[in-house]
Amino acid sequence: MRFASRALLAVWIVLAPLQMAAAEEGMWLFNDFPAQKVAAAYGFAPTLQWLDKVRLGAVRLAGGCSASFVSDKGLVMTNHHCIRSCIEDLSTPKLDLLARGFLARAQKDERRCPGMEANQLTEITDVTLQVQKATAGRTGEDFARALKEVSSKLEGDCATGTAVRCDVVTLFHGGAYHLYRYRRFQDVRLVFAPEFTMAAFGGDPDNFNFPRYAFDVAFLRVFDGGSPALTPEHLPWAKEPVKEGDLVFVPGHPGGTERVQTVEQLELQRDVVLPYFLLTFAELRGVLLEFQAGSPERHRTTRARLRRVENVLKAMRGRHQWLGDPAFFAAKKEQDQALRRKVRGDPALEARFGGAFEGISQAVAAQRALHLEYRLLEGADGFRSELFNQARRLVRAADERPKPSGQRLREYSDARLPAMEQAISMTAPVPADFEEKTLAFSLRRLRELLGADHPLVQKVIGRQAPEAMARTLVRGTRLADPATRQALYRGGTKAIEASADPMIALARLVDADARAVRQSWEAQVEGALARHGELLNQAHVAVYGQGGYPDATFTLRLSYGTVQGWTEGGTVFPAMTTVGGLYRRDAGVFPFAVEPSWLAAKKRLAAHTPMNLVTTNDIIGGNSGSPLVDRNGHVVGLVFDGNLPSLAGRYGYDPAVNRTVAVHAEVITAALEHVYRAHRVLEELVGSR
Amino acid sequence: MRFASRALLAVWIVLAPLQMAAAEEGMWLFNDFPAQKVAAAYGFAPTLQWLDKVRLGAVRLAGGCSASFVSDKGLVMTNHHCIRSCIEDLSTPKLDLLARGFLARAQKDERRCPGMEANQLTEITDVTLQVQKATAGRTGEDFARALKEVSSKLEGDCATGTAVRCDVVTLFHGGAYHLYRYRRFQDVRLVFAPEFTMAAFGGDPDNFNFPRYAFDVAFLRVFDGGSPALTPEHLPWAKEPVKEGDLVFVPGHPGGTERVQTVEQLELQRDVVLPYFLLTFAELRGVLLEFQAGSPERHRTTRARLRRVENVLKAMRGRHQWLGDPAFFAAKKEQDQALRRKVRGDPALEARFGGAFEGISQAVAAQRALHLEYRLLEGADGFRSELFNQARRLVRAADERPKPSGQRLREYSDARLPAMEQAISMTAPVPADFEEKTLAFSLRRLRELLGADHPLVQKVIGRQAPEAMARTLVRGTRLADPATRQALYRGGTKAIEASADPMIALARLVDADARAVRQSWEAQVEGALARHGELLNQAHVAVYGQGGYPDATFTLRLSYGTVQGWTEGGTVFPAMTTVGGLYRRDAGVFPFAVEPSWLAAKKRLAAHTPMNLVTTNDIIGGNSGSPLVDRNGHVVGLVFDGNLPSLAGRYGYDPAVNRTVAVHAEVITAALEHVYRAHRVLEELVGSR
Repeated sequence: MRFASRALLAVWIVLAPLQMAAAEEGMWLFNDFPAQKVAAAYGFAPTLQWLDKVRLGAVRLAGGCSASFVSDKGLVMTNHHCIRSCIEDLSTPKLDLLARGFLARAQKDERRCPGMEANQLTEITDVTLQVQKATAGRTGEDFARALKEVSSKLEGDCATGTAVRCDVVTLFHGGAYHLYRYRRFQDVRLVFAPEFTMAAFGGDPDNFNFPRYAFDVAFLRVFDGGSPALTPEHLPWAKEPVKEGDLVFVPGHPGGTERVQTVEQLELQRDVVLPYFLLTFAELRGVLLEFQAGSPERHRTTRARLRRVENVLKAMRGRHQWLGDPAFFAAKKEQDQALRRKVRGDPALEARFGGAFEGISQAVAAQRALHLEYRLLEGADGFRSELFNQARRLVRAADERPKPSGQRLREYSDARLPAMEQAISMTAPVPADFEEKTLAFSLRRLRELLGADHPLVQKVIGRQAPEAMARTLVRGTRLADPATRQALYRGGTKAIEASADPMIALARLVDADARAVRQSWEAQVEGALARHGELLNQAHVAVYGQGGYPDATFTLRLSYGTVQGWTEGGTVFPAMTTVGGLYRRDAGVFPFAVEPSWLAAKKRLAAHTPMNLVTTNDIIGGNSGSPLVDRNGHVVGLVFDGNLPSLAGRYGYDPAVNRTVAVHAEVITAALEHVYRAHRVLEELVGSR
Repeated sequence: MRFASRALLAVWIVLAPLQMAAAEEGMWLFNDFPAQKVAAAYGFAPTLQWLDKVRLGAVRLAGGCSASFVSDKGLVMTNHHCIRSCIEDLSTPKLDLLARGFLARAQKDERRCPGMEANQLTEITDVTLQVQKATAGRTGEDFARALKEVSSKLEGDCATGTAVRCDVVTLFHGGAYHLYRYRRFQDVRLVFAPEFTMAAFGGDPDNFNFPRYAFDVAFLRVFDGGSPALTPEHLPWAKEPVKEGDLVFVPGHPGGTERVQTVEQLELQRDVVLPYFLLTFAELRGVLLEFQAGSPERHRTTRARLRRVENVLKAMRGRHQWLGDPAFFAAKKEQDQALRRKVRGDPALEARFGGAFEGISQAVAAQRALHLEYRLLEGADGFRSELFNQARRLVRAADERPKPSGQRLREYSDARLPAMEQAISMTAPVPADFEEKTLAFSLRRLRELLGADHPLVQKVIGRQAPEAMARTLVRGTRLADPATRQALYRGGTKAIEASADPMIALARLVDADARAVRQSWEAQVEGALARHGELLNQAHVAVYGQGGYPDATFTLRLSYGTVQGWTEGGTVFPAMTTVGGLYRRDAGVFPFAVEPSWLAAKKRLAAHTPMNLVTTNDIIGGNSGSPLVDRNGHVVGLVFDGNLPSLAGRYGYDPAVNRTVAVHAEVITAALEHVYRAHRVLEELVGSR
């Protein structure tokens, strides 16, 4: 399928603004789900109990994915692509688990994933009034500081121990604030993972495409005090396979949408932000492709990282292409202008909300001016290295911890400190040559984008060769050793000041500049967009009425839809693929090589077993690993991707072509039984019913 | 200096449309130079003799650069970066001329550059009437065919032998057609080249920046019948150094501008065309950076190629950034709308030109739809390999040569056949591992951009791994051998059909598809844009009056300006740098390493010797290698670059910030004497006065 097919635009409907959500559009809050609308369309309304049960069965992986509990003994299902760093961390040059896959024959063989954390959302409290009271009348830096202080206080009061995580969640760009209380699981172990080539079957060429034949499946288990955690609120495995036309739900954590942006905000994305990332990732991809061809060991340590880079690149390319599409952009423009006309045309609305447009305009101008330095310095794109990240954590922890919690940088508040400490203590190995490569790449880019004569470039790089500088830093630092990091963390300011570690020295050297750009960013961009975004959202509600869903923020949402193919440019895309199709697509070479395990099982797997399927659910990156559940709240599939038109979902949802892509539950059980002989896992799933 | 500085936009004037050329704007035709305007501003008017002399002193290098005759014995001055492929072709693993530089101590030591061609424009004939008569009333494919036939006929009648090249040049997007007759020099020899690091001092970080300290200089000599060609119409070397404020001229070959495009055309560039190239070159750069780090031999063969990729990437990034700049784009939009208002507001104008806007709109839609397949197939971006290019030349030559000249693909017409035969006979070596690398890269991209299931991808790549396919092709083909190619060329269709060469087979496999997309492209895009571009241009003339210059087309132009620095975002950029500044910038590591030859000469070179300078001349890519001449028509410098704001010059010229960057004549003579002891060259230059 070609992304660039323009024919579908003829059927693209003018995008519905926020409060006019049509068809299956929407990433809904669990505590504000449009049950009546669903009932009217499908004759089924989720009850409050249904919603509570599905919510408690949903899991968030701290790295940026979704998951679900699928047994009462802490068994967690997610995508293979969500846990690749764990599999790599557990691999060695001699035992390449990513290539070979992993199965814990017994519970004692389940292996802990370094640095992995799973969260279960146990409670939602509306704290809008408290936050609005604390920030009332404030603007700019003042607003940002007040918001941080009140959030930190609310989170601190809520987080009663290291097994609890609390986040104040900003919804509707500041229109509402909810306090989310999570149960934290820090002992997460690997139970099952298939071979990389089966999980990523079709590789980058098939990514975001359909028909698709990927087995992007993995199982983890969360432990509590050394034993499997009890999770009675798990989602049971469905007894009946899901069929074309069936109503399905996706509980999960969509990462981010920008559906209520002004045209200026979209233009900034199209012309500055996305091109910045596209250029960065395209060049990085080239470097990594060539780097990994250098040796089998490099291939082993780079493979999954490259795949992540390629995934981001393809997703951003899709977003950029849609924003560059005249019909699509014209529809977004009309949406923006329609709201402006309504507000301008009504003196009462104009008085209340008219300032939002100018406020956002100013924030966008600030974002345009600050974007590059913010990304390079505070986003650390100029220092692309896990060891540098560790150095920064340590340098900042020493500076921040002596302050009162509410005055610290947000990620060092009392409520967040456990996660920070876990990151600092991470035991996963860091491949040194890979670190050198990416750090050199990013230093080169820092110099290129700011210019060789920029004061910061002079200070940091001076006249060094970036490659030599990266080598010296990575070979000279001791921060690859967790004990060294923990000692520096415990030692605080004194230890940091006494340290001769070159990576610590670099982090200290750039810290004042990075903090300065962050402060400007939070005040002029984030703070301003929050304030005026809230107004814009209120204007939407005032003009179009209630009943919307907030933009995605990597917090738990629920979407509904049906299993359904689509038509694009005259081509009909089916709702499902089968295992037989997988075997037909086998070309024997990566990325279209079916593994020996599956070839050996060919006779035992029915060719008509459903493999992947598409649904009309409105999801986005971050939803990876979400369960697909039926009206009984039973698991019928595992979401792992969207189709190419779904990349426009960042900005708007089109029911005609936007599709969620999932692994069918049938192929999961069939493969566990016939390919992997993972009877222990299979029985746990089937026993969950 | 930061490109992203937005402050300068505050002073950006609304861009003058074509016929309102202000200040030093303009890439003027030699036969339509605004001498009176120059006289009014500077008290000096070039005479017809002056213009003829300067025109005959200018040289075009077929690879895409400019140059000049600087002695009466065929000595040619150009940029080092224009002849790097020659230097590489003459290098061996043991003799790295790019790194070491080259000096022919005697004339017999001058070494022929394989495949290099130099052209001198000897005659311009206006053939507008003939062409318009032949194409009158035709549209689409029909128009394209008629244009090709009449051009081929005119060129054929003009090209009286292999020492003559004739091109019908399209000006004003079809508003005028001129027949350019060139003297062809195919025996071009290398006389002098400095070290790569001095020519490219500052490397990619300093590219398009200023202050600058590059010695981007090279000398060639054209031969005729085995002896130096006589070139009495050369440009003499100036006796006096050029100073700040002086009036200067640049004769040369600007490659392409798009200053009269509609907003839709600019949007297509911003959203589709430039992002396509940016992504391609960013990834290719990453691959090449990593590839060249693999071995010293790879470094040797890749270095200059990488530099070319980086140059294109940076230039296109600049163009993209300007098109993404709200103030700049708004000014271009206003320029477009002003013309539309004038035309729409006058029934007579509307009747004559009104159709142009809709016609261009349709052509842009066609371009959007065809862009990708055209680039990949006919532009051969999907087959990035010199050996593939050779295979295509041979396959097409066999198909085309039996046809009458006017019905062939244009590059196979009788007038162009000598150049085609020279390309086929090229003796320069092709590094095989580099070929494999770039071919694999482009095949991967072909699959990625069209999709694995695209019929053409299925046909060409199928289920092969692109890397293995590239290896098989490059290792299996015999086309690296010039004799093999010549035999296939002579053998024609029979030889091609009998050939088992895998690269020939690939070229044959894709030829029908490539020709089909080319035919659509020429009819729906090129042809339509020529027709309607002509109308748009006529509308400009009707609305704003006469006196304009046509968009650049890599044909000879003359620009005027003064030696002058600029101010941007509060920073003052000087008009000149000095040799002393070069030594101060020496960091000892690439790309800021001053070579031992220059370090040894430090005492002999006066620190105040001017090094590089900037002028207000309106130039663009293709002007590289142009001489900078004073009002006497004497050489005072050598153009090699523009500053970052000059990258917006593709779309519009701003006298406040747009600058040409040149090597000062003083440092050329000083370095020839004191660094390189190239007394033979120096005496020839000085003797030219």
